[in-house]
Amino acid sequence: MKLANLVGERFKERPSDCVIESHALCVKGGYIKYVANGIYSLYPPMKRITTKIENIIREEMDAVDCQEVMFPVVLPGALWEESGRFTSVGEELLRFEDRNGTSMVLGMTHEEAAVQLVREYGQSYAKYPFSIYQIQTKFRDEARPRAGLIRVREFTMKDAYSFHTSQEDLEQYYDRMAKAYDRIFARVGIPETVAVKSDSGMIGGSVSHEYMLLTDAGEDSIVLCDECGYSANMEAADTTVDNSGCAPAGELTKVHTPGCKTIEEVCTFLNSKVEESCKAVIYQKNMNDEYVVVFLRGDYEVNETKLTNLLGEKVHPAVITEESGLVAGFCGPYGQHANCTIIYDKSLCGIENLCAGANEVDYHYTGLNIKRDVGEVEYVDVAKIQIGGICPCCGKKTIHISRGIEVGNIFQLGTKYSKSMGMTYTDENGEVQTPIMGCYGIGVGRLAASVCEAKRDDYGPIWPISIAPWQVHICCMRVDKEECKSIGDRLYKEMLDAGIEVIYDDRKVSVGAMLADADLLGVPVRVVIGPKNAVNGEVEIVTRDKRFTNKVSVDDALEETKKMIATLFSEINEKVK
Amino acid sequence: MKLANLVGERFKERPSDCVIESHALCVKGGYIKYVANGIYSLYPPMKRITTKIENIIREEMDAVDCQEVMFPVVLPGALWEESGRFTSVGEELLRFEDRNGTSMVLGMTHEEAAVQLVREYGQSYAKYPFSIYQIQTKFRDEARPRAGLIRVREFTMKDAYSFHTSQEDLEQYYDRMAKAYDRIFARVGIPETVAVKSDSGMIGGSVSHEYMLLTDAGEDSIVLCDECGYSANMEAADTTVDNSGCAPAGELTKVHTPGCKTIEEVCTFLNSKVEESCKAVIYQKNMNDEYVVVFLRGDYEVNETKLTNLLGEKVHPAVITEESGLVAGFCGPYGQHANCTIIYDKSLCGIENLCAGANEVDYHYTGLNIKRDVGEVEYVDVAKIQIGGICPCCGKKTIHISRGIEVGNIFQLGTKYSKSMGMTYTDENGEVQTPIMGCYGIGVGRLAASVCEAKRDDYGPIWPISIAPWQVHICCMRVDKEECKSIGDRLYKEMLDAGIEVIYDDRKVSVGAMLADADLLGVPVRVVIGPKNAVNGEVEIVTRDKRFTNKVSVDDALEETKKMIATLFSEINEKVK
Repeated sequence: MKLANLVGERFKERPSDCVIESHALCVKGGYIKYVANGIYSLYPPMKRITTKIENIIREEMDAVDCQEVMFPVVLPGALWEESGRFTSVGEELLRFEDRNGTSMVLGMTHEEAAVQLVREYGQSYAKYPFSIYQIQTKFRDEARPRAGLIRVREFTMKDAYSFHTSQEDLEQYYDRMAKAYDRIFARVGIPETVAVKSDSGMIGGSVSHEYMLLTDAGEDSIVLCDECGYSANMEAADTTVDNSGCAPAGELTKVHTPGCKTIEEVCTFLNSKVEESCKAVIYQKNMNDEYVVVFLRGDYEVNETKLTNLLGEKVHPAVITEESGLVAGFCGPYGQHANCTIIYDKSLCGIENLCAGANEVDYHYTGLNIKRDVGEVEYVDVAKIQIGGICPCCGKKTIHISRGIEVGNIFQLGTKYSKSMGMTYTDENGEVQTPIMGCYGIGVGRLAASVCEAKRDDYGPIWPISIAPWQVHICCMRVDKEECKSIGDRLYKEMLDAGIEVIYDDRKVSVGAMLADADLLGVPVRVVIGPKNAVNGEVEIVTRDKRFTNKVSVDDALEETKKMIATLFSEINEKVK
Repeated sequence: MKLANLVGERFKERPSDCVIESHALCVKGGYIKYVANGIYSLYPPMKRITTKIENIIREEMDAVDCQEVMFPVVLPGALWEESGRFTSVGEELLRFEDRNGTSMVLGMTHEEAAVQLVREYGQSYAKYPFSIYQIQTKFRDEARPRAGLIRVREFTMKDAYSFHTSQEDLEQYYDRMAKAYDRIFARVGIPETVAVKSDSGMIGGSVSHEYMLLTDAGEDSIVLCDECGYSANMEAADTTVDNSGCAPAGELTKVHTPGCKTIEEVCTFLNSKVEESCKAVIYQKNMNDEYVVVFLRGDYEVNETKLTNLLGEKVHPAVITEESGLVAGFCGPYGQHANCTIIYDKSLCGIENLCAGANEVDYHYTGLNIKRDVGEVEYVDVAKIQIGGICPCCGKKTIHISRGIEVGNIFQLGTKYSKSMGMTYTDENGEVQTPIMGCYGIGVGRLAASVCEAKRDDYGPIWPISIAPWQVHICCMRVDKEECKSIGDRLYKEMLDAGIEVIYDDRKVSVGAMLADADLLGVPVRVVIGPKNAVNGEVEIVTRDKRFTNKVSVDDALEETKKMIATLFSEINEKVK
């Protein structure tokens, strides 16, 4: 098509309200239009990109025998009540009533709908395994949408659901799906995406992985080990602490620590090691405001997701009242009598000579030995892993932490949904069994934005050829000159006839404006028709990323363009395993 | 794929709750699954059909320079307030609040979103004309969903919006779009679809057409003239009445008509012609319960849509109270004094000697001459056209009425949305102008169901090859016999390798069950491997509609199948103009 007819506007100015570059470029480049908080319309270039991504996903899903279906966006609340999620999910589930007062929800994921679709079909073991997927609009009423298409409220998602008669069968399929995911991310141009072990959160289930595109603009923290390749998100990374070099047990002594409220202040005041101190972090349960005191090593932080998973309910930072019996700033394991849940983090395990609060204003203990002074306690893992910490896989102190965008996830669900929703099958022996499920998601718009975040320069996106809105961008620089215009028109027609996806800029605009627009559209192959070359019957074929530039005769331009397209595709395909 | 793995169930029994055949077949055949009232999930065969329909629509939209975009499903209520539809549309617009209490709606059509998307882009005349479309989920909270995918609450729709600087330009594009619609309906296999002039309803605008597939299962009534080809829906068909042969004016006389409440009873009692009587139909306005009395010829009925359009507000049948001053059953033009809106239908125009109610229990007038006895009144058209009535186009008494399903519509919107939403452009002379819009819809699921309704037999759908879930269905009848299985496996592989969309039934089921399933899946080309033919190295190639049947050697089967596919495609393409 001609660029002059392309619906959407491109701007020179960077929008002021964008916190990450891909968001700014998608707005500046005429890709997306803000409609409401976390809700966007897509202009033609972004629609073309997402359609290509969808088709790549579709091909890879079909290749692992996943069958495309379509679930509704609007679902009856009763269906979510069957699984228990109608009440267990928070405000991000949008609930409303239809004209007849029937409770409805907007689907944010479709486990319930998937079970409902196949509950009768899957009544015999002979039907298993099978899997289904859809690519459809979802709505998640996020409290804080941000970063353009990265975190929105309405989004297009591929969600797949598999059904199995054994854990082994699920694991086999899970591995096949993981490979399909690797192929998808490689094919859309981000083969560097890593699979990390993750917390299953609201979806449920035991084993799950997130696919992370590592980038500073990401909102997730990812734990990586350079040594063994271990990776996990912060919530899923086991924290291992080495307390082998700590001092031997001493005498329990109450010391006056006036005004020392933080553990750092105390350790500085007493000239003791933070690594041999015990701090208290106090929360309250959301449900009943009951206090939860977490004791952990002074230099560690609580991971609230781990804590929530342990407790089975959400917590918030405590407001400590006089009635609570807790002494803010001086809370410690010894002499603790307040009515609250007490949790000991594994980071304290093995330290025999702790400094800790004395549960009395301006007093701490030194020489605290939990086993001796408090008794046997259970140590659990609720601490955040640290940079330079011990890798839970290889045991070396090689942990580093990167930022990443989650571009996909896969979950082993177990029987959470099949059991609660009464899905059963009869096995070979006539026994009634509950099928085991997996689920597998990729956000299409977020993936497009993530590729933009990873593949760009200061001037715009550099779209991989596999998902670029067009393959070729013809810039006819001086369309007022007959020799330029005739070459441009000819090449445009030749390329259209050859089935190349081409956008043709034959506007009477300045060279600067033309190239700025071309940069914003990020089309990987560019054919530049300049007045000097045109006189010689030549054009330039360059790539958006400036790696290739090639002056060719007009007669050869079509073939050379095709070759360049083929080269870029083969670069992508080399990364696909 | 193998039929044994196809997700979804097929039944022998006709579901009892289906009022039309396509609905029953879609349930029986494993195409759709009921989720909630008017809300369905799609199984793989229906998803394959709708994807093919979407691709045909997409190609034809692209061919008329319509650019694909994507609007949100969830829209801010504020956007609908701009156009005024937030309040003007009834309960079918689903309104709710998000977690922050912001008013939101589920998009049922996207005129507002379209204007919002291009309001800045379209500020200069140089950008015009342009048009955009999306294929996306919509929700319309229908009071009475029915007939499977024909009338649902959630549906996938292609909706296009065009923007113009003159009425002429809109009309030109409207004609192009009308031709694209003809091509779409021909390509999906229902070239018999007719375009009828229609009432614009909630969407607004002046000129509009509905595309109707004529079938007894349709819920719309369509007015057709055999003579001149005129077509319109009931609401849009002008009613023309010939009163030239009526009796001359007589004397106004009050007559006693005891117990005669209907106009038929009165005319029988008085032995006068119904065609020279005036009846009253009484409504009340929904807003304020004000009475509306419609006088029309005794043998005509009121078309409530025409009446609503005339009044600019909705009405309901009246509850006549004593205080109203209206005399139920005896209401007439002469002596009418009650405080109400009075409407005279054109069907009364030209009758000089009417029988009508006397506004007094058990009394009528004869010899009523409205002009003489009541005065000059305005006659308007609020009556339903009748079978055998006068064609408003050619003037002959050739009208007949058919049932039809609306499979698409096109509207000339005028400036209804651009004006209310403040969309303007600067013209060649620097003047600020308001663009003129058109909009164009096709419901994808309804179209699939409509094709099923039109193309079927007692055993299942007969899908046109262009939208069939698969092109070829291999039925291997005795898979326990090696000669059958080897032929089946070979042909399945050959066809997959040749890129043919093939479903392979190699289940150990009875011939009857296998053929019943094949009929329900409605795949147009069937390759039947029977044990007798297999011994001779032969298979049968038959079409689902039984028009073609061909015994060929296994070696020739692939080529013959390809030829059959090509023949069926060429039959479709012959109907595409």
